[in-house]
Amino acid sequence: MDIQMIEAAARRAQGVTRRTPLLWSPLLDDLAGRRVLVKPECLQLTGSFKFRGAWSALTALPEDQRARGVLAYSSGNHAQGVAYAARRLGVPAVILMPADAPAAKIDGTRAYGAEVVLYDRAGESREEIGTRLATQRGLTLVKPYDEPQVIAGQGTCGLEIAEQAAELGVTQADVLICCGGGGLTAGIALALEARAPGLRPRPAEPRDYDDTARSLRSGSRERNASEAGGLCDAILTPMPGEITFPINARLCGPGLTVSDGEVLRAMALAVRHLKLVAEPGGAVALAAALFRGDQIASDTVICTISGGNLDPATLARALTA
Amino acid sequence: MDIQMIEAAARRAQGVTRRTPLLWSPLLDDLAGRRVLVKPECLQLTGSFKFRGAWSALTALPEDQRARGVLAYSSGNHAQGVAYAARRLGVPAVILMPADAPAAKIDGTRAYGAEVVLYDRAGESREEIGTRLATQRGLTLVKPYDEPQVIAGQGTCGLEIAEQAAELGVTQADVLICCGGGGLTAGIALALEARAPGLRPRPAEPRDYDDTARSLRSGSRERNASEAGGLCDAILTPMPGEITFPINARLCGPGLTVSDGEVLRAMALAVRHLKLVAEPGGAVALAAALFRGDQIASDTVICTISGGNLDPATLARALTA
Repeated sequence: MDIQMIEAAARRAQGVTRRTPLLWSPLLDDLAGRRVLVKPECLQLTGSFKFRGAWSALTALPEDQRARGVLAYSSGNHAQGVAYAARRLGVPAVILMPADAPAAKIDGTRAYGAEVVLYDRAGESREEIGTRLATQRGLTLVKPYDEPQVIAGQGTCGLEIAEQAAELGVTQADVLICCGGGGLTAGIALALEARAPGLRPRPAEPRDYDDTARSLRSGSRERNASEAGGLCDAILTPMPGEITFPINARLCGPGLTVSDGEVLRAMALAVRHLKLVAEPGGAVALAAALFRGDQIASDTVICTISGGNLDPATLARALTA
Repeated sequence: MDIQMIEAAARRAQGVTRRTPLLWSPLLDDLAGRRVLVKPECLQLTGSFKFRGAWSALTALPEDQRARGVLAYSSGNHAQGVAYAARRLGVPAVILMPADAPAAKIDGTRAYGAEVVLYDRAGESREEIGTRLATQRGLTLVKPYDEPQVIAGQGTCGLEIAEQAAELGVTQADVLICCGGGGLTAGIALALEARAPGLRPRPAEPRDYDDTARSLRSGSRERNASEAGGLCDAILTPMPGEITFPINARLCGPGLTVSDGEVLRAMALAVRHLKLVAEPGGAVALAAALFRGDQIASDTVICTISGGNLDPATLARALTA
């Protein structure tokens, strides 16, 4: 994994993935007591950064292999990213989704034309089912984060952050990244290392699913107690990835964690001040920027809103909380 | 009013107003049966296009006049635009707002540092109160739409649409514009006339406040029966402007009208497919793109989401409708 892989992914994505803007609001700055720059990947095609990694992975496959189709397992964002990338490339996609994923994500994945296979998140291993299906049907498994070409695709978001921060004259800042398996974090971290070394990546997680924060402290991959039932469905993974963790351990500052209540407040503030819809897992970094200011030293903080795919009732809950 | 005034406004706005992106969603296209390109002015600073016109008007004033301060009357978006423009320029702002404006807009205007004066929308004339206050305090009145420099500022949105459509290879399209007094419509219409003559501006309005659509049909300025109580508070004006209407009558195609129910559905679809927060008045053009397809001939339709300032309960209502 190096910056050349990310730059190659950026070239393959030219004219396909969306260059999301870097947004801010004067009233949000007032609230945070510092400048808050937001990278809204909820505005990315398919509603999350996952389309970047999916496009990178699919376009990196040899053409004959890609033509046989792809398979992905995902709570919903990677699912939609892979489904739409496959649609754009005209190849079949089978998506393995937990039965308790938000209905909007399951519907969205089907709407992009993929075949959806549901499984029980608590009782079955998605990795095992995925491997079996891939073998049976000759599909190529596109892993959600522990896959170099996926990480390279997510890194294109980091290239944009580096350029956009430089345009604003920002050379020193903490960059807070919504972190599940660590693919977006690792991709951004590698891009910033090469292009904006004064920007320090830091993972943000829900308090009860802080595997990366704990792993960064201990120096080895720590497991979450559970990966079901949390508000932040998009980023509930069992533990940091095999490929992503060494990258993040080398490049990231300490992790930040936030409560579900803080996530809901951040979602409401994203609506109020940025007019953006953040899903819970996509709002953890903004929540950390707003409510963990004591753990941030830089005058400017940059944070991802990594996705905006959610059931309407979840947004209504945040608005009326 | 000509394209040179708009270009001059664009130069004064360089590095201050936000160049909003032109967004789309494949699933929204599927739903509409044509390509739908959205210009999300809800992402503009202060949450609506009004900051463009306010910045243009304030920066066009002689410095000594500007230093004495400005006054505006507005249901809330122009209010916030003028308040924030005044804050950026370090001059006082007094804003006259209807007492029944959404609390979020009144709070927002105060948060930008303006002095807010409330009036009764049904029983008092904001024009009279505004003129009196301006005379008493030596303030310059910045009208919300019937003011050439305000129209020029809104026109910068049209310049961007012309450029962004060209980048996508779109040379023929209806451009649906959320229309109250007609300032945004006139500004965009003038910009498109000069820079993208194949793009046809068309005003979109709520069914019960269709003064511009009726005026375009009759050829003279028609009044609304009421200007209070509607869902789409941002665009409830008594009648088309004296300056804006002749421009719109010369340049616009027929108006489109939508019901409140369609506006709420468009707001929910903006959340679902674009991850954007549209206020009711800001969603009428998207509603027209989605639900008046029979009145649109072009393969591609461009529509503004003109603002996103709303009380959270209003968005929650759209999400659960």
